[in-house]
Amino acid sequence: MTRWIAVDWGTTALRITLMSGDRPLDTRASGDGMNALTRDAFEPTFISLADDWIDGNIQVFICGMAGARQGWAEAAYRTVPCSPLDGGLLRVETTDPRLDVRIVPGVRQVSPHPDVMRGEETQIAGILRNISDLDGVACLPGTHTKWAHISAGEIVSFRTVMTGEIFATISNHSVLRHSLTGHGWDEDTFLSAVSDTLSRPEHLTARLFELRAADLLHGQDAAIGRSILSGLLIGSELAATKPWWLGRDVVLTGSPKTTRAYECALKSQGLTPRILPADEMTLAGLTAAKEHP
Amino acid sequence: MTRWIAVDWGTTALRITLMSGDRPLDTRASGDGMNALTRDAFEPTFISLADDWIDGNIQVFICGMAGARQGWAEAAYRTVPCSPLDGGLLRVETTDPRLDVRIVPGVRQVSPHPDVMRGEETQIAGILRNISDLDGVACLPGTHTKWAHISAGEIVSFRTVMTGEIFATISNHSVLRHSLTGHGWDEDTFLSAVSDTLSRPEHLTARLFELRAADLLHGQDAAIGRSILSGLLIGSELAATKPWWLGRDVVLTGSPKTTRAYECALKSQGLTPRILPADEMTLAGLTAAKEHP
Repeated sequence: MTRWIAVDWGTTALRITLMSGDRPLDTRASGDGMNALTRDAFEPTFISLADDWIDGNIQVFICGMAGARQGWAEAAYRTVPCSPLDGGLLRVETTDPRLDVRIVPGVRQVSPHPDVMRGEETQIAGILRNISDLDGVACLPGTHTKWAHISAGEIVSFRTVMTGEIFATISNHSVLRHSLTGHGWDEDTFLSAVSDTLSRPEHLTARLFELRAADLLHGQDAAIGRSILSGLLIGSELAATKPWWLGRDVVLTGSPKTTRAYECALKSQGLTPRILPADEMTLAGLTAAKEHP
Repeated sequence: MTRWIAVDWGTTALRITLMSGDRPLDTRASGDGMNALTRDAFEPTFISLADDWIDGNIQVFICGMAGARQGWAEAAYRTVPCSPLDGGLLRVETTDPRLDVRIVPGVRQVSPHPDVMRGEETQIAGILRNISDLDGVACLPGTHTKWAHISAGEIVSFRTVMTGEIFATISNHSVLRHSLTGHGWDEDTFLSAVSDTLSRPEHLTARLFELRAADLLHGQDAAIGRSILSGLLIGSELAATKPWWLGRDVVLTGSPKTTRAYECALKSQGLTPRILPADEMTLAGLTAAKEHP
């Protein structure tokens, strides 16, 4: 089998995998995401990480923010409805003649609301490689959670909710940071906050300061505070996306911890989402890109 | 008239006013808020700013975070329902024998939800000095906006909504910061977002990423983005606090710019709030504290 390199190049992280056909052989990661790099730095950064994997001409398939305007090279968005991969990969000029580099373009939506994705289209291609007849919703929880209607092999429409980033921003930069330290978790508390917010979504922002006051007045445990904040935000997301998931076939693809939170929130609403791991879906999607460039 | 010093000592700012009776003579401010100081630093920080105002024994009345656990000295909360000032000022031991320093205690609420204020109780005392028969709601917009039910000279109950801090946190620390630069403002856009969120509060978090996507896809003006974000957050606050303001006599006391946003949002809902300036209410409240220590 010919070796090639699969690359997931995000805003804050770079992850490369040496592949043989559709089989991963080795993986390396670094913090050299798009935000840390000028355009000229992408090729040397890649070469220095992939280093000994490049023993001759090699194909490299990249998804994520490396295709953004501030990335290695801008891969213009395709517009929904469209299949997640549709040929049209961007061939990147390289200084090193051994490299044959292609970037998967992101996907945009113009109406009913403006929206964009870069990287998730590749994970959706991976999901469709596993469930080719999916007629339902792919939910990709993360910093910017994506909800995508999938039908007949296409992304019909999608919606981004910044739940992960809002959680991180509030936990790290607001006065609540004093009351939310650590990594503790209480699932019952989380589910109760999800349920409250689904019933009364208008209370979301008003309830946030309670987390600080409960700490000041009776030393509420930070794990309880974190579980409530997570439940308020995921509950709010589920309230906003109810037409996307209610009565639908939902596939969840994210990191294990985040996926677990969404899974138990959706189960509490009577759904039984299918789980497919995010890293595997990225590799499956990049494999699909390699097979049908 | 005896001279005395009124002090508003917040989390991030210190503001002192030389008073003669209830009349301000001079005002100075610095960035030496509670967060910048250890306990031992409060007295020298105060003396160095007040300096030439201290020409003999002088009374000093302080409200705000100087009375918090991490402040100059902890002034234990009083509990609602209670009048905003009720005697019980905390006398602070000082090294400099010329100083007679007293701190106004904050107010807490145990039920129906935990909540706290420090500083706003003094502004409410100032409002009651101006409108002694207020039977309605004091709304104090700011980093942590307070809504307080006022009746028969007492704070009956209150609710904090972190709208200002969430706006600042998202504008400064999330990916939206790229699309919200500057200080521009569009009132029609703001009011439209307020109205949307009052009708469909469950859409709040889902609409945030649209601000980024609209910038990426068609270069939406940052002033429009800021006005939408402000409208979404203030709309969400008004949705949560509707039982507090609907059909009530509302007094607004905050900085001019923030007060203006709340005023036009409330007017769009058929209210005609009365406006009293925050700095004046703080001084009026500290004057009331001096008169009835």
